[in-house]
Amino acid sequence: MQYAVLGTGVVGRTIAAKLASVGHEVAIGTRDPQATLARSEADAMGTPPFAHWHQDHPEVRLETFADATASADAVVNATSGAAALDVLARAGAENLDGKLLLDIANPLDFSQGMPPSLNPVNTDSLGEQIQRAFPGVKVVKTLNTMNSAVMVDPARVAGEHHVFVSGDDADAKKAATELLVSFGWPAAAVLDLGDITTARGTEMLLPIWLRLWGALGHADFNFHIQGARAAS
Amino acid sequence: MQYAVLGTGVVGRTIAAKLASVGHEVAIGTRDPQATLARSEADAMGTPPFAHWHQDHPEVRLETFADATASADAVVNATSGAAALDVLARAGAENLDGKLLLDIANPLDFSQGMPPSLNPVNTDSLGEQIQRAFPGVKVVKTLNTMNSAVMVDPARVAGEHHVFVSGDDADAKKAATELLVSFGWPAAAVLDLGDITTARGTEMLLPIWLRLWGALGHADFNFHIQGARAAS
Repeated sequence: MQYAVLGTGVVGRTIAAKLASVGHEVAIGTRDPQATLARSEADAMGTPPFAHWHQDHPEVRLETFADATASADAVVNATSGAAALDVLARAGAENLDGKLLLDIANPLDFSQGMPPSLNPVNTDSLGEQIQRAFPGVKVVKTLNTMNSAVMVDPARVAGEHHVFVSGDDADAKKAATELLVSFGWPAAAVLDLGDITTARGTEMLLPIWLRLWGALGHADFNFHIQGARAAS
Repeated sequence: MQYAVLGTGVVGRTIAAKLASVGHEVAIGTRDPQATLARSEADAMGTPPFAHWHQDHPEVRLETFADATASADAVVNATSGAAALDVLARAGAENLDGKLLLDIANPLDFSQGMPPSLNPVNTDSLGEQIQRAFPGVKVVKTLNTMNSAVMVDPARVAGEHHVFVSGDDADAKKAATELLVSFGWPAAAVLDLGDITTARGTEMLLPIWLRLWGALGHADFNFHIQGARAAS
């Protein structure tokens, strides 16, 4: 499969490298590939420049959002949530139509300082916003409830733990589940919450995730729904 | 210890019965005890009238909010979240001062239909609102992330799972933890998230709790933070 990963940050890089390692062709999408490659300083979060990472991952192409998406069979939204709709518009509705879109982002608003707020919240979610804005794409919200290192290496967290999927298209959720299994997730760890409105629930996990990160002092943890097995 | 449980619904009844069963004196607080006892019909949620329950639990007193709170050493807020501040005002700041207040409620707003919204959300929580409104009380937010049957009988959910505590007073959190242990919670299952602002995180778990309830078809589940043990 050909994947487009939208976003050049740690999450995008981590997912892109994993997709390539399990045998997919991967292009990372960015606004301006030359500008992305030209950066030589770490960003405000201390993330090393993209070009450094790219030297170790030459198998991953770097292209514009539109070029990466046009050639892809499936797309991963790994942008910061606030940028997602703008980035997807640049990727192009015509390039997204009919494809699986894994939305792994969270709509965190850092503008008021830490801890961030969620926007939208309660009666809407980023996953729903994307599905409404691009009705031809098949949005599956998943992986947004954990650190990116855990997304691609679930065994970092010992014991059973869950990854949620939310979406309106059953086949798209099946394809997303197969991808998760190829990442190392046991099929039984994939918990289907229902339609895309259930993304409200997983996005609203972020505030306690951030507090747990603070309380535990590390990010190698994940949510396990104890008792889920009793489901009919 | 003498406990006041504010709220006559399923949660209040369940907690009151458990407190009595582990040896505490318990008074349930209500606005008008005579009116509460006079009701003979199930409510809109199908909950049987209080008087029926009370026949099986004569050891639990029914008093006004103020009377129940005045004689109590510790108080449990088991109201619907929207009513909490009004109920606590009726209980009386002078009756709450210096006492442990276990806030097990969630600020769910059902006015716009199902699923309910949270209000406040993001930058505030019911736990914080109570602590601000009654600065003399020692609020510990806990037990609000699960069904009431699980609160008082954690073994209903097989395997390890967590109960969170949030609060500004270390001694109050210690007392809350001891109470949880007396309910059957292993001490290692009590996860201290930090100060009362961390209640935002646990209250914002409710949307996914509601979706899980729908997806699983039962309420005998709970959150387990896999990897929490690695905490320093």
